[in-house]
Amino acid sequence: MISKSEIKYITALHQKKYRQQHQLFIAEGPKLIADLMASGWVPAYYFTTEDRAEGVPESVFQQVSASELKKISALKTPHTALAAFRIPKYRVQNDASLTVVLDSIRDPGNLGTIIRLCDWFGVHQLVCSVDTVDCYNPKVVQATMGSLARIPIIYTDVASFIETIDLPVYGAFMDGETVYKSQLPDRAVLVMGNEANGISEQLSSLVSHRISIPQYGANQETESLNVATATAILLSEFRRTTER
Amino acid sequence: MISKSEIKYITALHQKKYRQQHQLFIAEGPKLIADLMASGWVPAYYFTTEDRAEGVPESVFQQVSASELKKISALKTPHTALAAFRIPKYRVQNDASLTVVLDSIRDPGNLGTIIRLCDWFGVHQLVCSVDTVDCYNPKVVQATMGSLARIPIIYTDVASFIETIDLPVYGAFMDGETVYKSQLPDRAVLVMGNEANGISEQLSSLVSHRISIPQYGANQETESLNVATATAILLSEFRRTTER
Repeated sequence: MISKSEIKYITALHQKKYRQQHQLFIAEGPKLIADLMASGWVPAYYFTTEDRAEGVPESVFQQVSASELKKISALKTPHTALAAFRIPKYRVQNDASLTVVLDSIRDPGNLGTIIRLCDWFGVHQLVCSVDTVDCYNPKVVQATMGSLARIPIIYTDVASFIETIDLPVYGAFMDGETVYKSQLPDRAVLVMGNEANGISEQLSSLVSHRISIPQYGANQETESLNVATATAILLSEFRRTTER
Repeated sequence: MISKSEIKYITALHQKKYRQQHQLFIAEGPKLIADLMASGWVPAYYFTTEDRAEGVPESVFQQVSASELKKISALKTPHTALAAFRIPKYRVQNDASLTVVLDSIRDPGNLGTIIRLCDWFGVHQLVCSVDTVDCYNPKVVQATMGSLARIPIIYTDVASFIETIDLPVYGAFMDGETVYKSQLPDRAVLVMGNEANGISEQLSSLVSHRISIPQYGANQETESLNVATATAILLSEFRRTTER
């Protein structure tokens, strides 16, 4: 049985304001929760319609009905479990070998995909502008499939960050040099810009290498690539060229 | 003023059954509609809250109120225009130089992204298994950003298609050869599998070259890449290696 005040407390975490106030976020589904726990994260709350799974501390475990779970879930079709975790505190690293910087990414699906890509390609940290969508937004958390706990994500003034580091700064632009012909270094910063407007003017001036993904075929009207697919291709290029 | 029977007719197109029956699909937003028209597609119906845009045939043009548009829209927040277009009839080409085959892709967002990628990288045709999500589904149409009209998409028995063509068949597998080390040809078929299960057993046996995108970093628990981001990287590799 879950109390009314608990329902209110947990559902408030659907909103950024309360996530920041309580320094907690929610993750749904036994697989995702288990993945986060496998990275050493410990749930502060754990609600499930099932029995207590291995590793779930008894002190936070609460068995609930499906209708109770529905009340606290951010999903249209809730899973069988919902947990709340503490928001981790990371500090930006100036000596990371590969950093991705996001400038004002707004779509939760894009951010979730980029977090998974950073995890796949062994990016050391993800530094986000403060107006980038919150990575603890329920939609982002669900889209990361557990990668959320495997890469440090820091929200900060990205211009100041870039100014303090002593590494080449690559940025994705429509008119940049073909990435296939660029000599990519094994230590770098890669900046990806907003879905509609690309990299802001302020940040553009801090980019030392403008790169782009060439377009093939005769269809010049084609929209630019989506930021998540562009990030996939550029990270693949960084890894391909520096690992061989 | 839009009639009740028109409202019923257009909203029915939100469903695959009626799209197939009437051989029509809907596209929303002046930009997307203009993009499809720029590819030579002619609207069969055109509803807008604004004045008639250049190129819109007077015979199909209907000015409507915002509330009328809302009744026929498939979007939560409708744009200012909605058009219905005829579903084009393409025939599968056995001599296309680069074909992407989709085996049971279920997510509309993934299909929309893959269509945009095929357009960007100049893929000649997209051949989809009959259980792949319908590319004229409103969510897919909106996600393609006009690329829908720039690449032939055919739904067919993909196994039969692959059996009839005389080209190397590449398929994305978790345990395939590193794509960075593969000698990719400039004429080929690339098969991408279902989000959860990958390429089906039947199709697997028809794949001549199993390729994969290597994972970096120590995080062995990482989920496989999303099918749309994997397609982005593999198409980039096909173009990079065959164009230089």
